[in-house]
Amino acid sequence: MKGDKNVDFEQLKDIANKLRIDSIVATNASKSGHPTSCASMAEIMSVLFFHTMRYKISAPRDASADRFILSKGHAAPILYAAWAEAGLFPLDELKNLRKLDSDLEGHPTPRLNFVDVGTGSLGQGLAVAAGMAYVGKYFDQAPYRVYCLVGDGEAAEGSIWESLHFASHYKLDNLVVIFDVNRLGQSEPTSLQHQLEVYDARLKAFGLNSLVVDGHDVTELVKAFDEAASVTGKPTALVAKTYKGRGFPGIEDLDNWHGKALGAEGEKIIKHLQSQIKTTKITLKPKAPLAEAPKVHIDDITLSSPPAYKQGELVATRLAYGTALKKIADTNLRVIALDGDTKNSTFSDKLRNAYPERYVECFIAEQNLVGVATGAACRDRAVVFVSTFAAFFTRTFDQIRMGAISQSNINLAGSHCGVSIGEDGPSQMGLEDLAMFRTVPTATVFYPSDAVSTERAVELAANTRGICYIRTSRPNTAILYPNDEVFKVGQAKVLRQSAKDRVLLIGAGITLHEALAAAEELKKEGVEARVLDPFTIKPLDEAAVLENARAAEGRILVVEDHYQAGGIGEAVLSAVSLQRDVIVRHLYVREVPRSGPPAALLDHYGISQQHIVAAAKQLIKA
Amino acid sequence: MKGDKNVDFEQLKDIANKLRIDSIVATNASKSGHPTSCASMAEIMSVLFFHTMRYKISAPRDASADRFILSKGHAAPILYAAWAEAGLFPLDELKNLRKLDSDLEGHPTPRLNFVDVGTGSLGQGLAVAAGMAYVGKYFDQAPYRVYCLVGDGEAAEGSIWESLHFASHYKLDNLVVIFDVNRLGQSEPTSLQHQLEVYDARLKAFGLNSLVVDGHDVTELVKAFDEAASVTGKPTALVAKTYKGRGFPGIEDLDNWHGKALGAEGEKIIKHLQSQIKTTKITLKPKAPLAEAPKVHIDDITLSSPPAYKQGELVATRLAYGTALKKIADTNLRVIALDGDTKNSTFSDKLRNAYPERYVECFIAEQNLVGVATGAACRDRAVVFVSTFAAFFTRTFDQIRMGAISQSNINLAGSHCGVSIGEDGPSQMGLEDLAMFRTVPTATVFYPSDAVSTERAVELAANTRGICYIRTSRPNTAILYPNDEVFKVGQAKVLRQSAKDRVLLIGAGITLHEALAAAEELKKEGVEARVLDPFTIKPLDEAAVLENARAAEGRILVVEDHYQAGGIGEAVLSAVSLQRDVIVRHLYVREVPRSGPPAALLDHYGISQQHIVAAAKQLIKA
Repeated sequence: MKGDKNVDFEQLKDIANKLRIDSIVATNASKSGHPTSCASMAEIMSVLFFHTMRYKISAPRDASADRFILSKGHAAPILYAAWAEAGLFPLDELKNLRKLDSDLEGHPTPRLNFVDVGTGSLGQGLAVAAGMAYVGKYFDQAPYRVYCLVGDGEAAEGSIWESLHFASHYKLDNLVVIFDVNRLGQSEPTSLQHQLEVYDARLKAFGLNSLVVDGHDVTELVKAFDEAASVTGKPTALVAKTYKGRGFPGIEDLDNWHGKALGAEGEKIIKHLQSQIKTTKITLKPKAPLAEAPKVHIDDITLSSPPAYKQGELVATRLAYGTALKKIADTNLRVIALDGDTKNSTFSDKLRNAYPERYVECFIAEQNLVGVATGAACRDRAVVFVSTFAAFFTRTFDQIRMGAISQSNINLAGSHCGVSIGEDGPSQMGLEDLAMFRTVPTATVFYPSDAVSTERAVELAANTRGICYIRTSRPNTAILYPNDEVFKVGQAKVLRQSAKDRVLLIGAGITLHEALAAAEELKKEGVEARVLDPFTIKPLDEAAVLENARAAEGRILVVEDHYQAGGIGEAVLSAVSLQRDVIVRHLYVREVPRSGPPAALLDHYGISQQHIVAAAKQLIKA
Repeated sequence: MKGDKNVDFEQLKDIANKLRIDSIVATNASKSGHPTSCASMAEIMSVLFFHTMRYKISAPRDASADRFILSKGHAAPILYAAWAEAGLFPLDELKNLRKLDSDLEGHPTPRLNFVDVGTGSLGQGLAVAAGMAYVGKYFDQAPYRVYCLVGDGEAAEGSIWESLHFASHYKLDNLVVIFDVNRLGQSEPTSLQHQLEVYDARLKAFGLNSLVVDGHDVTELVKAFDEAASVTGKPTALVAKTYKGRGFPGIEDLDNWHGKALGAEGEKIIKHLQSQIKTTKITLKPKAPLAEAPKVHIDDITLSSPPAYKQGELVATRLAYGTALKKIADTNLRVIALDGDTKNSTFSDKLRNAYPERYVECFIAEQNLVGVATGAACRDRAVVFVSTFAAFFTRTFDQIRMGAISQSNINLAGSHCGVSIGEDGPSQMGLEDLAMFRTVPTATVFYPSDAVSTERAVELAANTRGICYIRTSRPNTAILYPNDEVFKVGQAKVLRQSAKDRVLLIGAGITLHEALAAAEELKKEGVEARVLDPFTIKPLDEAAVLENARAAEGRILVVEDHYQAGGIGEAVLSAVSLQRDVIVRHLYVREVPRSGPPAALLDHYGISQQHIVAAAKQLIKA
């Protein structure tokens, strides 16, 4: 093989079998797991970790190193085995697989220092890898490369094809995706089985340099990875023909062996595999990275100038989002924005117009959009803001959920929330986004109600770890705060109060403005109402809610442009759940809305000023 | 053109321009909407509605008729115009577009009698169309055909490629998908612009009969649709080269005209278009359906035999789901099941093993899975049950959300909920599914806690309109109910009570069993606890919650294998929000969980028997 004289193919073969043995040992110890899914990719792992990839055992997540994403996360044992065999930790630890006190979980988690993101919900790894590759090529401009292993079962996920298109559109020639075509899914053969030529044709049509290889032949793999490194202008795909349970006599290529430890059978197979190994000790070492990636600074991000609005001005919070996004990009070169062809609605185009090279158009493919963001944020390479309509983040709930598992630091801005968007109708209205983001354990949920607080929300989000969500609104709304107002995560604002308040009104976004108008109207009718702006829905300022509720005779009226479940109302209810002296009335959108003018819809669905007035008057009788 | 002698091409051209005019008139009247997105598809609509499609103006959703799905729902005005020009309703009604009292919403809605599903969240229509085509070919075995128009912008959605693969895998030759390649997205040109050959290569690689056509040439379109009808064994794709704003001088093929009414400019364009029309009156009429579709009966579905469990038996609710699914399939030929390669985990394989022809394997592509289900259920052709892991329904939140807008009647069963799944770890744990489904306005959410109630949940779901969700658990659990117990939607069960109850414990699934064990333990410590099984979380039996809480000194302790937001706890809080005499303590999973044995995880995350006991004892001091 040309240029391969110095490759120790025999040792690579042996390492593959060692990895197989390790995978059996680990899953036998845990009595669960997916050894056959590991076996099909053993040679691929051997070649990647002991020949192709450049990385440091001393610093597994070093910014300069090649990245590896195991999209088929259920093959975690062989990933753990590869790092153990490479010397990161003792092989014996593999026996702690899936134990409560071990980080060697059933699927990869960044609790492990060699894992960038959690995988296990299928079809998500490639978007993450593409995000890393985009950063490597365009922002870091460093020679590190990104490898992503995709199972053939998960290749049916549309998100994979979104990411393939993205990768080829942006000419990510530093990305290699390996399809482990082992023919068998969980419950039956995959739809394409071993039709390698179909994969190949699809990948070529999607713009990749596609190579069909024998995934169990280390020489073919070495050659293919070498070729991939020399191809410019397009990502490479390796379509690897493999067999599930390869090297496991009586199991290989047979159905009904998915996700099962081998038990006693495994002991026999280990002996069989050992008999094939010629190398006693692994002497191959990973190659060092070719160059250092640039040092980047992503902390202490600030707006380039404070909010500058006039009292009385009407400004949509979505517009203020764009303004603030551009302002933080002024002060930090690693602030980037991604959008899915809605940038002129979400106003992420403010950043793009100022800094086109820091805007990544992801077109209408929201799953890939969020996955690319996750990848771009990995190893603290960038401060990533992602925007689309709030409603369309529902498309990415699985990616967001996995983002929490991944300890991901990404900022998502959802515009066009609620019925207040008006005529476009329910398909475009985000009415469940608060519920969705409130479930996310690592999330901070901002719901700013004017332009000043929106700018500060963006600034705070940029400096807050975890998943930040900013809910913005379509209509123009009044400025509520002075330009120098200080905002904090988890700190509510009282916008109106008196010593005689009889009810606490809580709203956010458009409904905060309705609540303020309602309080004015109630005052005319002799009823004083306190008005609270929660600013963040998660964490909710529970102390402020409680204190102000008590100061308002223990009555809370929450009004929100969202469905009932999981929104502000239920967040408030959770905050006061143990208080016998506080009651809560909740106004929300009760049914699938229709098209119509925004004001008419607010009224029709019972969340306008007049409904707040009526509900408050009724509530104070309680 | 061969065989086209009798086609009135001139009139088809004129109809296209009439549809353009109608689209301008409607969007000008509403001062919003997407006339340029309509213009690019005018000839396609003209040919489909006045030449190709077979349907009845007298019965727009007749089961025998050809179906048309407008996946790019923002082009709704031209869909409305086509039906109006065909004679369904007066043209003048188009001026009510987007008004609150009109069903001519901004995007298509089944409030209209000629619309099957809501569209507007992009990339979803093709899955629905594929579901309809599957039913037409394999269940109805009727000659009706299904047409789906997809925008080129939304062709970037991975869900489209999931559906294309599904359609070719199942040889849906009764399906035609038309790509309206008008080159321009909302905020910039699409990534592929007019690279028709790229679309063509991708579609061919995905197994379709792909034809590149001039989308503004009615003769080419007629020919292509005719050819599509003669192709067997594969679906046809028309890659139509079109121009956004076609026929609108000064607007055609220009950026920045997405989603804008034309205003005064539109008046001039209308005159221009009128000048090109030669036909004074439309004389073309739709062709009648070729044959009647079979009559089907999908009401009053029952289990073929009642639950038959022994007290003391341990049965997972996921297994009972499979058992019940097979039993309702015994009694109704239109009960079908779909799964995404998890059938041996969700136990939908019970139906498949008994009735393989009524099982549709959708492989690992959950968005298409739910979309196909939605399509299969349209026009009341089938009773559809869809299963996968609860966690993976998050992948389909947008489809579920749109399912509510679509008035869809589908049943979704999510297995493997919560930390009780154990070693596989958080990526596989459904911990936000209740929050997700509770937001859905049309949803009924079942959370059965034993095999008997699971079987009845399946039976009830089959007879309940809207979206039904059944949450099942992985571990084996005890039988709680006699086999003849009667269950109703919205009716909770009290499993344990005394005259001296001091706290009401509410759990479901695994946590109901923990709550029962806790009550036993509490009794030993001299504390009587009442235990309630809600059975349905939505609607929640609010009266029973309140009544039993009051009978237990106004104390509720909710424990659930779910995150805090939007789950059972907040549902209960909403139910008692106005009660000053009831307090609620909530035990739930507070962080991203780890891998580990189920019992250890329940304990580690604070939702096991011992935590319930401790929390109850603390609560009775309050």
